[in-house]
Amino acid sequence: MSDKIQVDLLIVGAGPAGLMAAAWMAQTGVKTLLIDEQSDHRTNGRADGLESRTLEILDSFGLADKVWAEANHTVEICLWCDSVDGPIRRDSIAPNSKAGWSRFYESTLGQGRIEDIVLELVQSRDNIDIRRETKPTSLDIDYSCIEDHSTYPIRMALDTPLRTSYESPHDSGISTPSTSSDDGMQPHNSDLRHGRSGTEVEAKYVLGCDGAHSWLRKQLGLKLEGQSFDHYWGVLDIVPITNFPDIRKRFIVKSKFGNLMMIPREGQLVRVYVQLPLTMADQYNMEKDPGIILRQVEAIMKPYSLKAKNTIWSTVYRVGQRICPKISHHNRIFLAGDACHTHSPKAGQGMNVSMQDTYNLGWKLASVIQGSLTPNILDTYQQERLPVAERLLQFDRRICHAMCSTRDLQSSLQGTFGEDHRRALEEENSSASGLAVSYSPNLLVTSTICNTDGPYEISYFSKQYLAENIRVGTRIPSKLVLQQIDSQSCHLHELFRSTGQWNLIIFGGDIVNKSQMARVRNLADSLSCKESYFHRFKTAREMKGDIEPIVVYLLHSACRNSIDFFDLPEIFRPESKYGGINFGRALVDNEFYHQPGGGELYKSFGIHPEGCMVLLRPDQHISFISELEDFNGLEMFLSSFTQLDC
Amino acid sequence: MSDKIQVDLLIVGAGPAGLMAAAWMAQTGVKTLLIDEQSDHRTNGRADGLESRTLEILDSFGLADKVWAEANHTVEICLWCDSVDGPIRRDSIAPNSKAGWSRFYESTLGQGRIEDIVLELVQSRDNIDIRRETKPTSLDIDYSCIEDHSTYPIRMALDTPLRTSYESPHDSGISTPSTSSDDGMQPHNSDLRHGRSGTEVEAKYVLGCDGAHSWLRKQLGLKLEGQSFDHYWGVLDIVPITNFPDIRKRFIVKSKFGNLMMIPREGQLVRVYVQLPLTMADQYNMEKDPGIILRQVEAIMKPYSLKAKNTIWSTVYRVGQRICPKISHHNRIFLAGDACHTHSPKAGQGMNVSMQDTYNLGWKLASVIQGSLTPNILDTYQQERLPVAERLLQFDRRICHAMCSTRDLQSSLQGTFGEDHRRALEEENSSASGLAVSYSPNLLVTSTICNTDGPYEISYFSKQYLAENIRVGTRIPSKLVLQQIDSQSCHLHELFRSTGQWNLIIFGGDIVNKSQMARVRNLADSLSCKESYFHRFKTAREMKGDIEPIVVYLLHSACRNSIDFFDLPEIFRPESKYGGINFGRALVDNEFYHQPGGGELYKSFGIHPEGCMVLLRPDQHISFISELEDFNGLEMFLSSFTQLDC
Repeated sequence: MSDKIQVDLLIVGAGPAGLMAAAWMAQTGVKTLLIDEQSDHRTNGRADGLESRTLEILDSFGLADKVWAEANHTVEICLWCDSVDGPIRRDSIAPNSKAGWSRFYESTLGQGRIEDIVLELVQSRDNIDIRRETKPTSLDIDYSCIEDHSTYPIRMALDTPLRTSYESPHDSGISTPSTSSDDGMQPHNSDLRHGRSGTEVEAKYVLGCDGAHSWLRKQLGLKLEGQSFDHYWGVLDIVPITNFPDIRKRFIVKSKFGNLMMIPREGQLVRVYVQLPLTMADQYNMEKDPGIILRQVEAIMKPYSLKAKNTIWSTVYRVGQRICPKISHHNRIFLAGDACHTHSPKAGQGMNVSMQDTYNLGWKLASVIQGSLTPNILDTYQQERLPVAERLLQFDRRICHAMCSTRDLQSSLQGTFGEDHRRALEEENSSASGLAVSYSPNLLVTSTICNTDGPYEISYFSKQYLAENIRVGTRIPSKLVLQQIDSQSCHLHELFRSTGQWNLIIFGGDIVNKSQMARVRNLADSLSCKESYFHRFKTAREMKGDIEPIVVYLLHSACRNSIDFFDLPEIFRPESKYGGINFGRALVDNEFYHQPGGGELYKSFGIHPEGCMVLLRPDQHISFISELEDFNGLEMFLSSFTQLDC
Repeated sequence: MSDKIQVDLLIVGAGPAGLMAAAWMAQTGVKTLLIDEQSDHRTNGRADGLESRTLEILDSFGLADKVWAEANHTVEICLWCDSVDGPIRRDSIAPNSKAGWSRFYESTLGQGRIEDIVLELVQSRDNIDIRRETKPTSLDIDYSCIEDHSTYPIRMALDTPLRTSYESPHDSGISTPSTSSDDGMQPHNSDLRHGRSGTEVEAKYVLGCDGAHSWLRKQLGLKLEGQSFDHYWGVLDIVPITNFPDIRKRFIVKSKFGNLMMIPREGQLVRVYVQLPLTMADQYNMEKDPGIILRQVEAIMKPYSLKAKNTIWSTVYRVGQRICPKISHHNRIFLAGDACHTHSPKAGQGMNVSMQDTYNLGWKLASVIQGSLTPNILDTYQQERLPVAERLLQFDRRICHAMCSTRDLQSSLQGTFGEDHRRALEEENSSASGLAVSYSPNLLVTSTICNTDGPYEISYFSKQYLAENIRVGTRIPSKLVLQQIDSQSCHLHELFRSTGQWNLIIFGGDIVNKSQMARVRNLADSLSCKESYFHRFKTAREMKGDIEPIVVYLLHSACRNSIDFFDLPEIFRPESKYGGINFGRALVDNEFYHQPGGGELYKSFGIHPEGCMVLLRPDQHISFISELEDFNGLEMFLSSFTQLDC
């Protein structure tokens, strides 16, 4: 038996990267097949670190509350080293994440739970077919039609468990071409129910989230490039019994007996990383006895005692950094996560960067599939994410260099923290984290330089001075804002959910000032003008009952009591699709009675008194900043990568 | 057919008061029967105002997140009145709730949704049997054993729909005496399934939450006393179409055409209260046409237009205040909510005070039933809640007087806001709300006066100067605190869940100071002394695998980095019942990196530098404040109302 199905997107691998891509497809309704070799994900071990940006992303899907409530929040990091007279001593305590960068801060929760929570969203929509215990067995690309993005040039054969009629692919909204229909709806005998079948998939796009040993990457003839070092680390998830005072903080110990790091996890769990001599690593790899790792931990922790009440998981890894120099194949097949970059887990960034890879790609794929963006925007995936992976590896090298004792190092560096190690730790949750990721100018990110010297003149560019502290290419930060109509508060980020919508924020400034209000009205008139490209793009999908592709917000800084909501231009008080008025589009940067942080946005973002407009991509990254009069620039920019005939 | 069941508590009426009592029983495991005349609660209309204290209470059951997310938060109140030249004008905008009093502020959500959310908790436990379409038909009290609280002196007959075997009372953990068992497990024929049966209930306690026309109150020969006035008000729930700028704020209009108040609700709904001339009220009562009320609203709102897109619910009521002077019958039968106090709905307090009534009673009943508190503490229900009801009625009279135009009033008072009205509105969400409720000294609230002149010397009393800003008898406020072990933050209130537990907070002060630490150690030694009454009471129920009756917290003000968690007395780092250590009992009042408000608790609560201990009842009200050396006073106080043989 074999069946044949056609999908817009085939995702190989249901780990964090694959599930994040599937979450986008869940939100946008793209027909997707998600396959994974495993029958179910493993509950224990693997990644556990969640960076602020990942939490913001999960929040944009409505998933952060649950994750945040279950996670352990890592507030502080403590460094311990040898004291002059012998035993280890606490060298420093510092915040583990820089305050004020995000509403969230670094936390830990087992990868299995995070996958569960994303999976709940994915499973709640009927456009995603999930098949477990399913392996790809062949890949075939029809290069003749690869440039025509309406075609399905990729054919893959899958080895998959036989489906029963109860699991008919029809249920998932995936179309099944006729060849399989003559089999009827049921397997012919009950033996077949436990058999395997071959499934042929035709896909427009394929996404390889199949890990460090990626089958898909190998099919494309691509390799992870880089090197491994003779440093071995043991990893444990334990419930400790100890008298060590920082056991529920993140801490690093560098002593003459070796180096380790621990990170508290949800419940009573602690994640331990400890450097192992080669002999111990070899011994562990033969015996798989976590006691080998634990004994090394005990030696380093002295004079404190540390025993494991429970050992949930253990492993040993060899330090190395590898990257695949190409993560897109003709904008049809993409690699993400461990499939294109591997490194040591100590910076706690693996799962984060993997999810952020597909968070970057997902909305682009969905928009191209749905026809609202031009296919060439898919170039931006590799342009944006490969540099992130490269920086991650650089950073990991620094962290590893600092953390690994070697016989070559001067003994003066053993048991102490060098300046670069301290700096690297500080950067880990600020500039090295997802929060500070900045994409360079490309099709979806305007340049801030008016370049008339090139081969052709770009007629639009961003004026960074109008919003000095929020940089084009970075994700917009969040501050408390109030609704004009009722003074209820919300965080700016709460407005920008991951739906595939773009958001245009009109920073109107002090609109009590009549000339300022007139400028806002002029822009609103242009935005509402039925003949404009902007309006036609905005309403193109709306007409079909779909979501608005761009949502327009007013965020002014006048005293809200001086403004009458019903005097605002109509674009800021549109009809709600539930009837009545949508009151949520007119916002104000004013103080709030019940919570600090209101009335600080303009200053914090460095918004110029004359205001500006800021265009956000569906992933909250800023793609265009310009003055209120630059409706023309906005239109030019938008029309360079969007299309109306969707 | 009839069946006979025995329960510890019978609750008559599944409205907000009845459900709040049931929520306590759900948390404490008391065998309860909850009956209601209706087949299901109505979705529309009735109460909708939620005060901060009610939200705190819901939060203590883990229910506030859902309510808060669905509710509309009423941030501001606007007063509108006649202008000199005719049309109404905005007179003022002010916060609707005083900032800083609570983590929550006034919000609105339909009573039906609130009931749903509480009901979810109640239904999740198997000790509560809920029977709808069930009416009590007779009440019989055996006064001979009424003082013996181990007996079931109350017999009530219920008229109830016949149960099928699927709804066997066995399922709910309620014991069924033998008389019904010979009927077998199923009705004898299918007709009976739609019939009625008589059920006899034997109960230790009965709680009447059966509304203004309370059957139970009448059986006890009690009456609501008070008066009604010739003021009629129409009430509407509408989705408005309007150009009135404050439509999503709470607002009051007093104009020569009449007075009204509107309160925005969840979704697009608005609740309208409008004073009606008698003729209109009569007309409405005959025709039930909400258009009659709406026309009066339209007249008052001019020159603004206001139409109703949808009218969800309407009613007309006559202003009056009535109270039952007795709300406890031999500490066996209790009245709560509308069954013992009715008033006009405009202060938005009805549902709140009703839920707060049974929030006060529920844990007391559970503790007496479970044997940890002496039955005489049930006296405190009437002692505490009757004065609250009286103050509510006084307040309602003030609000009604201010809001109702009468022909007798000077025309100068029409269309304007008098000083008392403004003051009353300010008090509504501060001193008149549940937040400021203070219970006078009684069995469960110590006096702050050392009275040696009375007939006997009370050997314990509270020293209010040790915590000047948190008053004995009031609910403790909440501030951000950190955990000693990991610097994670939580709000103080998050610790004090509604489980029936008492909480003893040791405000240790600056325990880096050795003499201060020694004082804390001394107290910890006393608290841990196995022979002490405190320790015996604390462990009495614990021994049976039940909850701890008193939880002890340390909340110090030293710099957390100077304190080693494992140096703290063991009582502050007990074993967790899940294994390992319970890290949540040692807290610190320090600043927090990621959120303002940490490090302010000692100052805000007015904690004396020498520290103190504060005992909280299970309802978060403060019952005892004394110095760290007053272990004796604590024991004396506790032993005056607790018992060990539970």
